[in-house]
Amino acid sequence: MQPSSPALADPASADRLRQLVQDHAEALVGAFYQTLLADDEARVFLHHSVVQERLSPSLRRWLVDLFAPGADMAEAAFVARQLKIGEVHARIKIPMHLVMAGAAVLKQRLADVLAADPAAFDLLRLTGGRIDYALRLMSQSYEKGASNRARLDEAYRLFSLDQDIHFERESQRAGLMEWSQKTLFRILASGGVEGAGALSASPFGLWIRHRAEFLFDGSSHLARLNAAMERIDAELLPRFTPGAAASDLAGPLEALEAAVDEVAFLLGEMFQGLAGMEGGRDPLTRALNRRFLSSILSREIGFANANHTPLSVLLLDVDHFKRINDTHGHPIGDEVLRQVAEAVTENVRPSDFVFRYGGEEFLVVLVETNLRQATTIAERMRHALAAKAMTASGLEPFHVTVSIGAAEHRGHPDENYLVKAADDALYRAKQNGRNRVEYDGAVA
Amino acid sequence: MQPSSPALADPASADRLRQLVQDHAEALVGAFYQTLLADDEARVFLHHSVVQERLSPSLRRWLVDLFAPGADMAEAAFVARQLKIGEVHARIKIPMHLVMAGAAVLKQRLADVLAADPAAFDLLRLTGGRIDYALRLMSQSYEKGASNRARLDEAYRLFSLDQDIHFERESQRAGLMEWSQKTLFRILASGGVEGAGALSASPFGLWIRHRAEFLFDGSSHLARLNAAMERIDAELLPRFTPGAAASDLAGPLEALEAAVDEVAFLLGEMFQGLAGMEGGRDPLTRALNRRFLSSILSREIGFANANHTPLSVLLLDVDHFKRINDTHGHPIGDEVLRQVAEAVTENVRPSDFVFRYGGEEFLVVLVETNLRQATTIAERMRHALAAKAMTASGLEPFHVTVSIGAAEHRGHPDENYLVKAADDALYRAKQNGRNRVEYDGAVA
Repeated sequence: MQPSSPALADPASADRLRQLVQDHAEALVGAFYQTLLADDEARVFLHHSVVQERLSPSLRRWLVDLFAPGADMAEAAFVARQLKIGEVHARIKIPMHLVMAGAAVLKQRLADVLAADPAAFDLLRLTGGRIDYALRLMSQSYEKGASNRARLDEAYRLFSLDQDIHFERESQRAGLMEWSQKTLFRILASGGVEGAGALSASPFGLWIRHRAEFLFDGSSHLARLNAAMERIDAELLPRFTPGAAASDLAGPLEALEAAVDEVAFLLGEMFQGLAGMEGGRDPLTRALNRRFLSSILSREIGFANANHTPLSVLLLDVDHFKRINDTHGHPIGDEVLRQVAEAVTENVRPSDFVFRYGGEEFLVVLVETNLRQATTIAERMRHALAAKAMTASGLEPFHVTVSIGAAEHRGHPDENYLVKAADDALYRAKQNGRNRVEYDGAVA
Repeated sequence: MQPSSPALADPASADRLRQLVQDHAEALVGAFYQTLLADDEARVFLHHSVVQERLSPSLRRWLVDLFAPGADMAEAAFVARQLKIGEVHARIKIPMHLVMAGAAVLKQRLADVLAADPAAFDLLRLTGGRIDYALRLMSQSYEKGASNRARLDEAYRLFSLDQDIHFERESQRAGLMEWSQKTLFRILASGGVEGAGALSASPFGLWIRHRAEFLFDGSSHLARLNAAMERIDAELLPRFTPGAAASDLAGPLEALEAAVDEVAFLLGEMFQGLAGMEGGRDPLTRALNRRFLSSILSREIGFANANHTPLSVLLLDVDHFKRINDTHGHPIGDEVLRQVAEAVTENVRPSDFVFRYGGEEFLVVLVETNLRQATTIAERMRHALAAKAMTASGLEPFHVTVSIGAAEHRGHPDENYLVKAADDALYRAKQNGRNRVEYDGAVA
């Protein structure tokens, strides 16, 4: 959508507007940055000196050009410039909502300036429209850039995880021990730690700040590790003073050893956590991990809406699963889930998607499939499962049944509606006696 | 940043505004959707019937509540509602700039409605401020949601790539051949293809639309494969008519065989392309792939700005590399690059980042390092390399030199400034005779 920028007012008021903007540009830009710099989120991006040197003049130019395009600023150049700004903001991570907050300040200040003008209403309408148009264009390229950046960040994170984690763990453990050993030698030689340096300034500390923050994104262990490191540097190291008697060192040494042990323990725990990180598939059933459901379902809904093709989902639940678990134990329950997943997967096409949705629930996305076809597939699955002898070591072959809810996509762009409809149908299947298929609405 | 919503005008004009919005809500909402549905991008999300049934009434409620919050719509509830809308838009992929375009339409129509009011200017200012505030809140949660979604999409794409590609390739090749064989049996039995079904409707065709589109995102081969598949279904299959003489089948059969071969060839090529897909590291030098530079550098710039720590980069280029390649051949040139990368990596800390930046260029990100320290590290690298005997099979040990440009981050949030400064310094190092280090600006 590329609606043209709003038409200019009559030449005389357009001239007045240009003059007003030029006269007040300095103050308007000042107000804009004052607002942004008052915000914690924005301040990180906008060092004060950089704002003064580079960004203020360019915002000023942008503002003046917005209302006085003249011959040197053709419409195409105007559009290209706004798109470029959005692209740069995405690169330097200035969120769009902060730019909108700054623009709102500009608009309110401009309204103050315009209030006394004979054509105040028209000029206010014009300035609002013009600024909104610029914001819209920026947002367009910002969204694209921010999305690309998020994808790259994720690719890098997954790549980091994929590196030789064992090597990295040992290498960082060695770094920590090396610092500790050096520090102890200093203490033993002189009683003090002069010249040994803080742990946070060591290669280990640097690695924690610049690699671990990314690798263990949001880990509570990492916060504890940072706290322990800070305590070592700020509290424990200063306790060692040159020339102290050996007997005075015992307490501080014990505290330091405990703190270093804690850092080593937390480091190990974090690496341990990585090894168990969840993958793309459920390890037990080999069904897709539920975290990808939204990516896939929203893409399929987009496809169905764009191509006017049908799309259905099945939600399948193993009947009386709790009883199986309680009677035979969890390992048998797991074996049942594995065999149910196998039967489900055997009854769909290579283009369909099978997810482990919950404990004993599976969700199947059936592409280019209407409700009638979906219920047929669901009945086939139900029969196949009821007929299948489950095998588990130490048990006679036994049978399980499943209840299935089917629903067809009805055009709503929100995937939650579709899943909810299948869930409602599944609920009815359970209510109506289990081992049956129910569907949402009427079959065409 | 959570600026409060603009203050309401005096009670009488606030009442008039509420009445005006209510009276015109129907028309305003109509204009909003007319604009969005005229847009190709937006139409995909908003099926007409869905808009009528669900979205129009909720936009109408939103609009009325925006100006008549009343007792039942406290400020916190207002904020929560806008944030929720942004979240939903991110989920159903309605881009923020389209919402802004719709809002611009609302504002312009509202201005028409308000123009005759005695307090037109104030009301216009108020409505603009109120809508902008709502948009800002939506944008805030939209950006977060869209970024999470982009990360998940990428994780899923990389997960798909990681699956058993060889198995998938053979399985889809078999699917294509199975369709082809079935179709040929029909033709040989009757001369026609009734009941054989289109290739695009076969499991293979479905797989192409729902899996390959994602796996081979944007591949030109895929576009050609889709075109070939469409030609088979729309042009070639209709040439077979039941009861045709065997002699009439020769031409159409030849054309069909060629087209199926083309589809098989393109499928193979696409899978081939996946195998050679670039990973996180340059396979030759094991340096990081340049595509992650932006993710890493922008994160480090954010860290430096937030923590007031220094940050520097080195750009390193092998001197006279073309001569090495020309004299000894590319394999020797590759060996030189490998050994240069090794020497560079040996001279940085575990927390630094070494990228293959171009053919014979490497970029090093030095965290928590100022320009003085960076030039020291650069000089150490330069000496280490000049002293290092390069070894390559069939050649006497020989030496290469490097030129290095160093630059320190000066606060600008755009990473391109920093890389550009290092590049300028590298250029000077080359101009000043090579085998030397130059730096950007004055060393503190």
